[in-house]
Amino acid sequence: MGLIKFLTIAAMLFLPSIAITQTLDETTQNEAKQLIKQGLQSNVGYTVIESLTTEVGQRLAGSDAEARARDWGVAKLKALGFQNVRVEPFQVMYWKRNAESAEILMPYPQKLVITALGGSVATDADGVIGAIVKFPTLQALKDAPMTGLEGKIVFVDEYMTRTQDGSGYGAAVQKRSGAANEAGKRGAVAALIRSVGTDHHRFPHTGQMSYQEGVTQVPVAALSPPDADQLKRALSRGEVTVKLVLDVESLGYQESGNVVGEIPGISDEIVLIGGHLDSWDLGTGAVDDGAGIGITVGAAKVILDRKKTPKRTIRVVMFGAEEVGLVGAKAYAKKYKNDLGKHIVGAESDFGAGKIWRFETNFGESKLYKAKEFQTILEPLGIALGANQASGGPDMGPMRMLGMPVVTLKQNGWDYFDLHHTPDDTFDKIKPEDIAQNVAAYAAFVWMAANMDGNFKDD
Amino acid sequence: MGLIKFLTIAAMLFLPSIAITQTLDETTQNEAKQLIKQGLQSNVGYTVIESLTTEVGQRLAGSDAEARARDWGVAKLKALGFQNVRVEPFQVMYWKRNAESAEILMPYPQKLVITALGGSVATDADGVIGAIVKFPTLQALKDAPMTGLEGKIVFVDEYMTRTQDGSGYGAAVQKRSGAANEAGKRGAVAALIRSVGTDHHRFPHTGQMSYQEGVTQVPVAALSPPDADQLKRALSRGEVTVKLVLDVESLGYQESGNVVGEIPGISDEIVLIGGHLDSWDLGTGAVDDGAGIGITVGAAKVILDRKKTPKRTIRVVMFGAEEVGLVGAKAYAKKYKNDLGKHIVGAESDFGAGKIWRFETNFGESKLYKAKEFQTILEPLGIALGANQASGGPDMGPMRMLGMPVVTLKQNGWDYFDLHHTPDDTFDKIKPEDIAQNVAAYAAFVWMAANMDGNFKDD
Repeated sequence: MGLIKFLTIAAMLFLPSIAITQTLDETTQNEAKQLIKQGLQSNVGYTVIESLTTEVGQRLAGSDAEARARDWGVAKLKALGFQNVRVEPFQVMYWKRNAESAEILMPYPQKLVITALGGSVATDADGVIGAIVKFPTLQALKDAPMTGLEGKIVFVDEYMTRTQDGSGYGAAVQKRSGAANEAGKRGAVAALIRSVGTDHHRFPHTGQMSYQEGVTQVPVAALSPPDADQLKRALSRGEVTVKLVLDVESLGYQESGNVVGEIPGISDEIVLIGGHLDSWDLGTGAVDDGAGIGITVGAAKVILDRKKTPKRTIRVVMFGAEEVGLVGAKAYAKKYKNDLGKHIVGAESDFGAGKIWRFETNFGESKLYKAKEFQTILEPLGIALGANQASGGPDMGPMRMLGMPVVTLKQNGWDYFDLHHTPDDTFDKIKPEDIAQNVAAYAAFVWMAANMDGNFKDD
Repeated sequence: MGLIKFLTIAAMLFLPSIAITQTLDETTQNEAKQLIKQGLQSNVGYTVIESLTTEVGQRLAGSDAEARARDWGVAKLKALGFQNVRVEPFQVMYWKRNAESAEILMPYPQKLVITALGGSVATDADGVIGAIVKFPTLQALKDAPMTGLEGKIVFVDEYMTRTQDGSGYGAAVQKRSGAANEAGKRGAVAALIRSVGTDHHRFPHTGQMSYQEGVTQVPVAALSPPDADQLKRALSRGEVTVKLVLDVESLGYQESGNVVGEIPGISDEIVLIGGHLDSWDLGTGAVDDGAGIGITVGAAKVILDRKKTPKRTIRVVMFGAEEVGLVGAKAYAKKYKNDLGKHIVGAESDFGAGKIWRFETNFGESKLYKAKEFQTILEPLGIALGANQASGGPDMGPMRMLGMPVVTLKQNGWDYFDLHHTPDDTFDKIKPEDIAQNVAAYAAFVWMAANMDGNFKDD
């Protein structure tokens, strides 16, 4: 390569790129770069997760523990220096687990490790006993005749595929509701599923299910992966009879709430971030979603510490009752639907504690150039540009469907479903350096969104 | 290198080495090499483990399940073509777990994952409640004053070191008995220990403990590693009160037994191999010690299939009640102490399901040259020569102490204490290729020992 050509390319590489339309001024870009630096050095996200998982632990939607988590959230946001800290209450149906067990009665007596799916009806106190009928997939059960399963226990043995982007989850999760509904329609007395997860440990994965209108409600539980293997091996030798005991109950509507804190801006336009405060009851909700709370609170705290007032208000929400049907998110959308136009963009962190590898958007087509501008700032963190089909995270769903633009700072979910909804979702699984990368990315994104020119919608 | 020199070295490498004293004739060496080949291709070890863990599952010493395991063992050995298949009964104290739970009452109410140690006394039905006093090591507790712990719950937070040879286990296991004994001497009401294990999953590790004579017997349980972490974090913030409920019981002496099968030789001298049939009650006893059963039965089966009569009798023993104090091994030694001279060598497989990497012996000094001869045959399997201090495995201990030579075909134990004595010790953790390597090594070793000249003792 000749010297002139080398210098020309070098100049192209090192000079700032000049977009025809530019949404981020140099001051905002520089501040975002500074926030990345500060975020990578900050441990506040990590310590927030430690605090929540230790001082509250599990915090099932509607429980006393979730109420303690709200108290924790209010105290934490105030202590960190947020403004307008408040709980926005709503009601949630409170389902709880008391005790649960399963065992092979015949031909090889032994206990099985299971857990009730959220929302399942209980069995009688003596449990339900039935011969197992296995289906490799939910579709195979749906394709089964409407007779022949009376008095049986259905076992849906569908596996989940491990992927970086969690795309295996959607397919696998169908069976959580589908197994019980299809079993109930066919006169079966209960349903078991292979846990929705990607690990090989003896932890069952819980998760919400719901019954279709008018279908006989049968109890449903998830087997740990090794127990699903065990049941399958036993079945390969002949008929297997299982006893299932689920002592669970629905205790009617109880108070839940979203915890909100703000960094007030010059305008009342809002950049909305957050995670969900509730967790399943088996673990301590570290990766789901203590991480999301820590990352978004931590990012806003890094901004706070810079003591610069953003143009727009930065609002952090700890959503309540996500796991049982986005109840907090729906309450938020109901409360703020008339403020929809003030919501410039929303982003929830709720995909574990791995590093962010992709910046996904859901913007108006005419504003897509902004995605590239934002991603360019985030690129040193190892973040590429993704498609313009972001969900924004579960709790952004209701507002997104009303029209709010969203982004997803997509985390590496390769290992997420090893821990997801299991007793093993505990603080020791959190890596401080991964949380710091998330905090850095969120801080920079939020600052840019709060200070950019214009918005993300088609005009 | 010149051609002559090359040919000379090649000749040295490829000609059989000629020892001054040689214990293995060429026929025996060739048969051993053939057995390695067959062993590596055999899946019988793997299928025996699958059969035991599926058709019996957990098999706690003294339980009905252990009795079913003996029935399984007799049927399996007969089906595989062993001779003189029998149960040699003995009595064992039967301790069992009914239910167990623990929770932090104050200041952060939440459940803890624990399991009673084998042999622990029960708590009252309402449980025991006390403030936690943490000690970093058992030694720190031993060094504590004899007053000041009255009414407290002692927590020994000692960690175990991960090693390939399991050398971290001996130190860590001391606390299983030590914690309760030292707590009882000082008026504490219960003891908790960080599980003896090397993993970070939310599984507690059980294991046997025993009370010293005359010491107040207090209940003792192991916390899973994440729960030990959680308790430590809570304690770093101030006083923590815990409630512990252990519903366990000792049901007196029950029948157990060793299952024995043989490949009869020309002489009644014995080469003794085996594993232990009992397991802890939490998992299905796959790596501890379904693997040892599968490996040794599988190795003998590979020999059987060659349809050649060994000079000496090959005896395979499935020892009962190992976990609760080598009860089966002691019964074996008592029964056969007068046949000690006929026992040429013994080797138990009881260190998980990893590949063998070292051939350790416990021979008379004058017979150490045989160790090298044996190891040379095993070397293509990746097996080096170890020290002359082999234990031979736990169940060879009583016979070794009487004077029986032993070998240890030492497995890679790097991951063994991740699963050891947990609910996660299940069949999916077994790798068929690793079991085949073990089967090949045992088959070759056993054949050589059964057909060599002389013995392993100093004359």
